[in-house]
Amino acid sequence: MLEDRVRLPLLRSKITTAEEAASLIHDGMTVGTSGFGAAGDCKVVPRALAARAREGLRINLMTGASGGYDSDGVLAEAKAIRRRMPYQSDKTLRNQINAGEVMFFDLHLSEMAEQLRDGYLGPVDVAIIEAVAVTEAGIVPTMSVGNSAVFASLAKQVIVEINLDMPLTLEGLHDVYAPGPRAHRLPIPLTATEQRVGLPYIPVDLEKIAAIVITRKGDSPNQIQPPDAETMQIAGHLSEFFANEVRVGRLPPSLQPLQAGVGSIANAVLHGLVDSGYRGLRMYSEVLQDSAIELLDAGCVDFACASALMLSAPYQARFFDDIERYRSRILLRPQEISNHPEIIRRLGVIAVNTALECDIYGNVNSTHVCGTHMMNGLGGSGDYARNAYLSVFVTKSLAKGGDISSIVPMVSHVDHVGQDVDVLVTEHGLADLRGLAPRERAQQIITNCADPLYRDALRDYVTRAGTRGGHTPHLLESAFAWHTSYQQHGNMREALKLDLF
Amino acid sequence: MLEDRVRLPLLRSKITTAEEAASLIHDGMTVGTSGFGAAGDCKVVPRALAARAREGLRINLMTGASGGYDSDGVLAEAKAIRRRMPYQSDKTLRNQINAGEVMFFDLHLSEMAEQLRDGYLGPVDVAIIEAVAVTEAGIVPTMSVGNSAVFASLAKQVIVEINLDMPLTLEGLHDVYAPGPRAHRLPIPLTATEQRVGLPYIPVDLEKIAAIVITRKGDSPNQIQPPDAETMQIAGHLSEFFANEVRVGRLPPSLQPLQAGVGSIANAVLHGLVDSGYRGLRMYSEVLQDSAIELLDAGCVDFACASALMLSAPYQARFFDDIERYRSRILLRPQEISNHPEIIRRLGVIAVNTALECDIYGNVNSTHVCGTHMMNGLGGSGDYARNAYLSVFVTKSLAKGGDISSIVPMVSHVDHVGQDVDVLVTEHGLADLRGLAPRERAQQIITNCADPLYRDALRDYVTRAGTRGGHTPHLLESAFAWHTSYQQHGNMREALKLDLF
Repeated sequence: MLEDRVRLPLLRSKITTAEEAASLIHDGMTVGTSGFGAAGDCKVVPRALAARAREGLRINLMTGASGGYDSDGVLAEAKAIRRRMPYQSDKTLRNQINAGEVMFFDLHLSEMAEQLRDGYLGPVDVAIIEAVAVTEAGIVPTMSVGNSAVFASLAKQVIVEINLDMPLTLEGLHDVYAPGPRAHRLPIPLTATEQRVGLPYIPVDLEKIAAIVITRKGDSPNQIQPPDAETMQIAGHLSEFFANEVRVGRLPPSLQPLQAGVGSIANAVLHGLVDSGYRGLRMYSEVLQDSAIELLDAGCVDFACASALMLSAPYQARFFDDIERYRSRILLRPQEISNHPEIIRRLGVIAVNTALECDIYGNVNSTHVCGTHMMNGLGGSGDYARNAYLSVFVTKSLAKGGDISSIVPMVSHVDHVGQDVDVLVTEHGLADLRGLAPRERAQQIITNCADPLYRDALRDYVTRAGTRGGHTPHLLESAFAWHTSYQQHGNMREALKLDLF
Repeated sequence: MLEDRVRLPLLRSKITTAEEAASLIHDGMTVGTSGFGAAGDCKVVPRALAARAREGLRINLMTGASGGYDSDGVLAEAKAIRRRMPYQSDKTLRNQINAGEVMFFDLHLSEMAEQLRDGYLGPVDVAIIEAVAVTEAGIVPTMSVGNSAVFASLAKQVIVEINLDMPLTLEGLHDVYAPGPRAHRLPIPLTATEQRVGLPYIPVDLEKIAAIVITRKGDSPNQIQPPDAETMQIAGHLSEFFANEVRVGRLPPSLQPLQAGVGSIANAVLHGLVDSGYRGLRMYSEVLQDSAIELLDAGCVDFACASALMLSAPYQARFFDDIERYRSRILLRPQEISNHPEIIRRLGVIAVNTALECDIYGNVNSTHVCGTHMMNGLGGSGDYARNAYLSVFVTKSLAKGGDISSIVPMVSHVDHVGQDVDVLVTEHGLADLRGLAPRERAQQIITNCADPLYRDALRDYVTRAGTRGGHTPHLLESAFAWHTSYQQHGNMREALKLDLF
């Protein structure tokens, strides 16, 4: 069996324990690991590394996107992370970032490989990559590709975690392509979601493989919330909007390739398409969640590619049970390619991402609670929203039982400028912002998307701000009154009682 | 002579007066005109159109970028503009936009052609294009290409303004390429600044040419400020930074293709490179200003392409006097191509754009005074800043004699998120923000870029905000205290006297 997993006899001598492998890593090193959205992260070397944090070891940790509990969680709990990029979603790590204990550099997911190659981010000392197998030519990754290819190419040493619980039949699921050096770079030849342009493995100088560790640890389960009444309403509004775009001839009946952000709302929106009668859809996304499997099985989606397959336990079982069939309809790519502006723009992707809050002019905050506290990170939303054919943001109109309005006078942090937000959807309705000036956007957003509880106050704000003039009217002295009310009283409702605007 | 300018005898029957041509345009129509940064805008039909505003005529005006006085200025003074996109820089029009009288939709300059083809922005009724000549195959534009090709392709009728003061030798200066329809779109084959990929004219169905007007009106002069002590210091810091990047091997000695935003500071920064000893530079930009001619003549720049040549009168004379030589080293492209994410990313452009204000975390406002009043528009800065190899923003640290600090606790409007700002430069110094977390960025920006007058107050803000925690610490209740002080007292200094933070 092991012959299938480590195919060169010479390399089998590198098989060792997690502790031995971890001993290659020293304090202050930069470690690049596999993993994108808790799919395919390495899981046993990080734990061995965490044990050494007691000796004071701290590393700079780079990944694809977030890691699961076994990488980010374990290392954060041991306080073993000094710097972190480009994305995370672990509770302990998040607290350390917000306390200023971990320096977190979050960036557009497509750009990290470029910045690494360009030498901006310093050298990568060690790469740790979870794999199905090491072949004669390279590494076959598991449930994600992420930044593993660039880590493997730049790292001085490579540690491989062979996960025996990941079926060998995953081989063939990946398509690994890297753009050439800048001065002589050619167009990326990809012109269709299903097109293969690279290799089914990560090429690596086998001499660099310094340790191989055998594991059986599964990915952290995807903690996705099932669809609820509100996310189903959001899905309904969006589906109706698409139907109308098809009717007026702006979209073909099979739409254009779909991207959906990580998380419960975007997942639920895609679930909602299952019953909408679409056929021949394609997905060009960064992460495929349960909804992708649902859409493939229902015959709505013909082909889906992304950088990671992040499934809940039952959906992963379903995927593993019928992997040969799925493999002809799913491809996993490096995140540099899944999120590449060149491809997103060329294919005309329809991007659906989640807003934490949106303001009346269509600016979106998707990362910072009250402008200060990081949730997860920008991720790939900026890659998609800026370059998409159509950029949609979804959010429930209220949070915390109505204590928070997701539609605010001014967002407390901007991740996506109004120009990158074509359509906004809440459970109340959809605002089509294309071609509108800010004053027009405000009317659409307040009327169609804000909750009635906050609607009048938003209108009041717009009216009063409008009398002072400006292309984008605001009252700077009270633009954050709702946020400061939340900080002081635990809710925005309190602000409504005062004559703030 | 006219035979050279209107080459098909049949088309010469279309030659008419500006008034006759303008009579093709009716109230409520959408008119797409040539012009990008006051270069190559149409100049006599707009005046005839303005005369008809007394009858109540109002149009939706689309251009490449801004128009000059003869298009935007004349039409705005007549109150003939109802909607405007995607960019402007006219004083009268700006006031109308800020009064809410003109609905202004500003968007990434690369995206307008896409959105027009996609049908987002409605039909284009009439295109008016300034030209050197109409050939058997199409229209040879003058000093810009802008959106003229997409207007000519989509408009129901086309009016051509043949400008006899624009030399026929401009023919061959242009390279007109349009991406194919979305579902079957191929990579844009452009892989080098000097590469031709399209046609030397704008292809058009000659049947649609409804009127030809002969003019002799020059472009509005480019009102560029000459370099001063501070812009020369900014240029010096940037030049030193580039030199160091070359030294450490992150940039080749000829750097990577340069983009520089419109305006005096960016122009001055490029002027500053003349004496820096660089050779073999290339420019991939949206507008070439006087500095480009200077750099070409000095032998620093080998080749420069953009969507417009916006020169002051003496530089235009210099260009016209030696046009054959310049023509082998300058190309003008549609703004969809000059600003295309695919090409900017592929070539690895170094982007230099101007900030109106920047905050301590590196977010940039380049459009809205005090978050409300529009200056010009976003333009192409977002196309470049997001996709560049290196995104630089420049600004003087103070404005209005020190009444305003360009470095503020929180920008009052966000055009460019921190992730899109790699380097910030003021006359005081340069902040290299690559790979840094927000708290680290704040230290760099305050220490290297803020004026000493405001530096302590910014440090105070960071310290107090930091005690409340957060990845990006802020005091929301006083984040705009400097802006409101400026609104109330006409300066930010007043805020320094109070114990605001």
